[in-house]
Formats: sequence, structure tokens, C-alpha cells
Amino acid sequence: MTASAHSAPSPVQPVRWQDGELYLLDQTRLPGEIIEERQKSAAQVCASIKQLKVRGAPAIGIAGAYGLVVALRDKLHLDRESFIAEMHKEAASLEAARPTGVNLRWALRRQVSHVLEMTGAGPEEMHAELLAEAIRIHDEDRRMCRDIGVAGKPLIRQGMGILTHCNAGQLATSELGTATAPMYLAHRDGVGFSVFVDETRPLLQGARLTSWELLEAGIDVTLICDNMAATMMAQGKIDLVITGSDRVAANGDAANKIGTLGLAVLARHFNIPFYVAIPYSSIDLDAASGADIPIEERAPDEVTHWGGHRTAPDNVKAGNPAFDVTPNDLITGIITERGILHSPYGQAIQEHYPCD
Amino acid sequence: MTASAHSAPSPVQPVRWQDGELYLLDQTRLPGEIIEERQKSAAQVCASIKQLKVRGAPAIGIAGAYGLVVALRDKLHLDRESFIAEMHKEAASLEAARPTGVNLRWALRRQVSHVLEMTGAGPEEMHAELLAEAIRIHDEDRRMCRDIGVAGKPLIRQGMGILTHCNAGQLATSELGTATAPMYLAHRDGVGFSVFVDETRPLLQGARLTSWELLEAGIDVTLICDNMAATMMAQGKIDLVITGSDRVAANGDAANKIGTLGLAVLARHFNIPFYVAIPYSSIDLDAASGADIPIEERAPDEVTHWGGHRTAPDNVKAGNPAFDVTPNDLITGIITERGILHSPYGQAIQEHYPCD
Repeated sequence: MTASAHSAPSPVQPVRWQDGELYLLDQTRLPGEIIEERQKSAAQVCASIKQLKVRGAPAIGIAGAYGLVVALRDKLHLDRESFIAEMHKEAASLEAARPTGVNLRWALRRQVSHVLEMTGAGPEEMHAELLAEAIRIHDEDRRMCRDIGVAGKPLIRQGMGILTHCNAGQLATSELGTATAPMYLAHRDGVGFSVFVDETRPLLQGARLTSWELLEAGIDVTLICDNMAATMMAQGKIDLVITGSDRVAANGDAANKIGTLGLAVLARHFNIPFYVAIPYSSIDLDAASGADIPIEERAPDEVTHWGGHRTAPDNVKAGNPAFDVTPNDLITGIITERGILHSPYGQAIQEHYPCD
Repeated sequence: MTASAHSAPSPVQPVRWQDGELYLLDQTRLPGEIIEERQKSAAQVCASIKQLKVRGAPAIGIAGAYGLVVALRDKLHLDRESFIAEMHKEAASLEAARPTGVNLRWALRRQVSHVLEMTGAGPEEMHAELLAEAIRIHDEDRRMCRDIGVAGKPLIRQGMGILTHCNAGQLATSELGTATAPMYLAHRDGVGFSVFVDETRPLLQGARLTSWELLEAGIDVTLICDNMAATMMAQGKIDLVITGSDRVAANGDAANKIGTLGLAVLARHFNIPFYVAIPYSSIDLDAASGADIPIEERAPDEVTHWGGHRTAPDNVKAGNPAFDVTPNDLITGIITERGILHSPYGQAIQEHYPCD
């Protein structure tokens, strides 16, 4: 335990602001080790995002918002103009840390535009308001997750088998998660169901994170390899699929962790409802369709190596797109904090989010 | 290098009989180490099959055939009746080593029924004939792989992207493989194409074996995680899917490595031809449909651990079916040594294999 890394408090939170400091849970070490790292600089926050120490589009957005506060705390001596220039620079740098999830961009732009409205305010005041806005974003996320849970809970009935992919859980948000929020609330209500968790190669967020947090909550969990989902569906074990999404385009196309598209196709084939759960901060009205969503390609060694050991031939090429896009026609519904949206999604999004 | 383990000769063969001894390549150590193990007993052969040191339905059949020779070589002093009883016992024991692939059963029953026809022969003579039959099975597999290649080669055209799963390559057979045989022959003819190889969790036969053997042959290979296949298809990178099968039922339903069913569903959705390549020894006329094929469930620690390290929470359940069944209606064609079979498969199988 050092000044910058210590055992996290319980319950585990992916992002925590305390006594003027930002702490991120190092999710790459879960479930073996529960360690928080104090973030000393914007560069460290960027690295934590790139390395997936903090991950999950909503949690990245919250971390980025606090990250901007961290980035600017030694710029308070600047004049207003210079401070604003630094704010733009640091926000752009943070925004570039990961390209696919839109919540990071959403949070940073919200903070910046909020502060730019403070005509005549100095750096101290603007900085305090950046923090206040970060805290509001964080609090709002908690409420959104709870409301997503309320909206999605009726989908879960006694005896169901639910499949989820990657981690759209409390570790990906403030708490309750997005895809998992209906599960947590149904479980608290005494509904009995089973969750099948895709391990989610290459980085095993399902095995390491989702199965861990659902088990901690006392939910029945079966871990499977990604390629086992089809046979579980064919055997009638899956009644419902719920995943998160890192960015939903204006037409309802949804980018999410690689493997989601395959699940959506399988669900359609086996006639199983396929839902995506998101807060409104994951909707990108600037993206007309999934074709406008940038897909992050990560380093091939995530595929060719395991725990530092090479498991594939030395000279093999490897594909490693971190996300895929599920077209809107494969999505049964989008669970949001304002209710479940149905096709046509363009219209449903406009109706539910008229001013965004 | 010891008497029982040494570097394998080149080209690498999964099963080798030399100077009265059976050698199996330990495929669990590929691609890092190329080590053959001399098989000293039937128990060792069974263990090698169970531990996937030798794997791939045809190669398991060949190994089992030689394994029966190894099992009985110290029984030559018995009387004929006792020798036959031992032969039945050892064959049953070998046959039980892995349940899903049918080639092991096929090879052992072929040997046993062949030897039982030798009225009045003694143990020495019967044992010599068991070996002769094993060598015939081995040689026949080489010819079948070559003929599968000849039958399937016209499917592969310049510039194609081909997806395969697990290893139905030379490491799974005598040589050339089943799914890979058309690729090897097309490559020798100068046809340029790319192969996308699913890594094939949990045991990574695609990453460790298929990508390795195709690269060694000079074929363009891209390794992907199993859950990336859908996005590669959506991007138009895949023109053809070819997998092997461990057992094809009389109606054309095909059991193969877990994940194959999902690929077949995806291929149907994206309108991509999906072929299964098998020798006739993989057809089981006793299985009316896929429902009659036993599916091996392997230990959960193959899913929860990696390289001896736990990657999932301690108390999580894990599913680990080693195979799934692709229904015949998702299969574009079955590539065999007697040509490509098409639906209705029951009829096509009867026509091509009238006496089996």
C-alpha cells in the first residue's frame, strides 16, 4: 500500500473522488487484486483509460470529467484566456484516450461548455465549477443506472436465463451498471434467474469483472467462452440477452464490445429478445448510423499473448477490433433511463431526447 | 531428449509408427515446443487422447488403432480366447477416451472385426494383422485428405477470405487435414487467398495449431478471437467458411468444436457459404441426427484458468461443452473424399456411401 495505490473501500467503485483526489480502481488486476490508484496527472488518467484500468463508457466519462479537474489544478495561476486554452487542450487530450465510447467526449464537452458560460469568471472559480460539474455527472450517472434498472426490470422473470457480454456492470458505471441494473433490481425483488456471462476475449471483462460482481451480489452465474453462446441458445438456456453499448447512433445502431454483433445475430436466429442498455450520454446524434462510429483497433498482442506469454506463432498477424456495431434491426429494444425505446429508433430517440 | 520424448522429425506428423513404436506429437506444447512422446502403454495412449496431446477426430482414430497394437503386444502368450477377450477390453477402454468424434470408434471396430474374421489365427498373427490394419487406416487417411482437398479446391478462388475454426488441419489427420486440404492444394496451385483463423477458446487450437501450420506452408493468416468472426463477415472480409467435423449424423447434422454452430448461423445471416470437410470415417449412420451425438463436457478449469493461473473468480460455475452440433440446414455442403455432398444429406450420404 502506497500513497498512490491502496486497497479499495467496499463497496467497490470504479471511480472515486475524495478529499480533492481522483482514485481509479485498477480493473486489469481484478478479480485477483482490488487496488485503487490515485491519479496524479492528466497523463496518468489518459494512460489509465488507454490501459483499461478504468473502462466502460460511462465510467470513462466520469473519470475523464474528474481527470480534467486533475489536469488543471496547477493552472490556477494563469490568466482567464490561458486557462481556457489549457482547458481546451487538456480536454482534447483526454477525449482522444479512447475513440469508440462517446460518454468521454460527452462529459468533457459538457464540462467545458458549462464553464465557458461563466462570463468573467477566473480560473479558481472555473476550476471549482469543473469539479462541481464532474460531481453532477457522477451523481446523474447513479440516477440513470437506477432508472435503467427500473425500466428494464420487468423484462426479467422468474426462472429466466439471461446472457450478457463484456462488463456493462457497476464496474463500468457509477453503480448498478447499465445491462446489469435490471438484474440487480430484479434480484433485490427476489426474482430468481441465471446469468450466462461471456468471458469476452481478448481481455476477459466478462470472466474477470461481470462474473465477479454478479457473484458478489449473490446472483447465479455461469461463465462461458464467447463461442459457447450459440449452443446455450440452441439448448434453450437463454431467454434474454442484455448488453451495454459504448455509443448508439441516431438511428439506433449500437457499438459495443467486440462479439456483441455475433450475439445479436444468434439471438435473432434463435428468436431470443436482444436488448441494449444505455444512459442518454451514450447516444450520439452526430453519428447518423453505425458507419459514423470510429472503431478502436487495439494492439495485436492482446490476441497473441496471454498473461505475458505468447500463445500464437511468432509471425502471425492478428485482428483486434475492440468493438463492433450491431445494426438497429437486430435490436429488440434499447433500455434507457427514460424507458425502453423500440424501432424505429431514430424517431424514438427524437421523442425521448428532444433537446439533446 | 529422453527415450520417450524427443524433437519430432520434419515435416511434423501428429501420429507416427516407427520400428515397432507409436509416437504422438504433444500438441498441447505447440507452437512453443515440438516434442514427440513414445507411447508405452494403452493407458498412456488414453491419457494422451484425453489430454488432447493428440486431437482431431481422424488423428485420434489413427492413434487409437496403433494404441490397440501397443495395448496387446505383451498379451501374445495368451491363448486365442483370452487374447480376443483382452482385445475387446482394450478396444473398449480406448474407445471411451473421448466420446464425440466417431473416428476412434470407427477405427477400433474396424480393426477388431477384421481380426475376428481370421478364423483359427493365434495371437501373434492377429496382433500382426491389427498393426497391418492400423497402417492401412493411416494410409487411407492420407489418401482421403488428399481427395477431400481435390474435391474442395474449386471452392477457393483468387482473392478470397476464408474463415476456419479450431484445427481441422494436418495436425488433426495424417497430413493435409480436412478443412485445410482444399487450402493447401489451392495454395500449391498458386491461388492467392487469406485465411482468418478463430483462436478457438478454451484451448486455442486455432491460435496454436492452425495458424502455425498454415503459416509454415506460406499461407496468409490472420488470427482473430472467436467473437470477431461476425464483424469480419459484416465487413465483407469472409467469402467462405470451412470447418471440420468430429461426427456427421445420418441426416447431415455435424458435431464439431464448440463455436462452429455460431459460425454457421453467422454465415447464414451474412449469406456466406458454410462447408464442413470430413472423411467418410466421420460419418455415423447409427446417429439419426445430431441429437444422437454425445457431447463431451470438459473440466471447467479450462475456462476459468489460463496457463495454470486463475482468471475468473474462485467460486464461479463454468460451462465447457467441447463440441456443438450444426443442423444440416445451415450447411452449404459437406466436402468428402468422394466429392461435395449437398442437401438433402440423408439421401446424399446413402448415395455416396451405399455399403458403409
